[in-house]
Amino acid sequence: MSGVGARYFEDFKPGDRVESGRLTVSDALITEFGRFYDAQVFHTDPEAAKTTVYGGLIASGLQTIAITFKLFLETGTVAACSLGSPGLDEIRWKTPVRPGDTLHVVAEVLETRPSASKPDRGIVRMLFTTVNQHGDAVMTLIGNQLCRRRPG
Amino acid sequence: MSGVGARYFEDFKPGDRVESGRLTVSDALITEFGRFYDAQVFHTDPEAAKTTVYGGLIASGLQTIAITFKLFLETGTVAACSLGSPGLDEIRWKTPVRPGDTLHVVAEVLETRPSASKPDRGIVRMLFTTVNQHGDAVMTLIGNQLCRRRPG
Repeated sequence: MSGVGARYFEDFKPGDRVESGRLTVSDALITEFGRFYDAQVFHTDPEAAKTTVYGGLIASGLQTIAITFKLFLETGTVAACSLGSPGLDEIRWKTPVRPGDTLHVVAEVLETRPSASKPDRGIVRMLFTTVNQHGDAVMTLIGNQLCRRRPG
Repeated sequence: MSGVGARYFEDFKPGDRVESGRLTVSDALITEFGRFYDAQVFHTDPEAAKTTVYGGLIASGLQTIAITFKLFLETGTVAACSLGSPGLDEIRWKTPVRPGDTLHVVAEVLETRPSASKPDRGIVRMLFTTVNQHGDAVMTLIGNQLCRRRPG
């Protein structure tokens, strides 16, 4: 699925992989999200975070999910076909995300399945691995993407 | 678990429920999140969103996850015991969240399990249901919460 041009359901095959661009996570990005959505000191206060088990500021795991889809969306992989998603499975946080970390995402197609009820679409099940600048997986999750079939 | 005072692993039992406070979702909250994390027109542009299948602005499902944990965190249920979370399971988006919707969260304990490797903690598995002002479930998910045992 890593070619050019609009991709539809038929263009996704198990084993296909796409890699996103990079995002460097700043203190401000972490604390801005943390203060509203996940107000625990290790997400909101760089000084107080030093006294916690994490030894410093880390990104909310919920923010890591959001960054993962930002980076994937920006690849344009599902720009032509996306009809949204019924849900996500098996989100696993593996390594804390710290200020200065540079993240990218690798998405791999696990399975494709035509919709049983709607002939114009199918589901593409993908494993997303979010990786830091050291090559460590910081998070994995499985996404279920509703994709249009190629028109005509 | 709906009593007062600090709660530890021992205080959670299957079937226990807690209900959060309410948050009303504004246009600005939806578009601010959407523009950075999930830049699709139905999350970013109230006018252009009218021409989409959703007929107007809707919140990113990723934002609904974040709002769900914000509301749950603000209940204080895991304030004393939280050691973070290894992950989430079975996130299912059921109904779009639109500007003006007022959301709350119901968390129900499904299962508690002492840690096999660390005697000071256990895992509390909870079903979260995010509900709008019409009583519709907009999202469900299963969270796995690492909780400290009661000290001493």
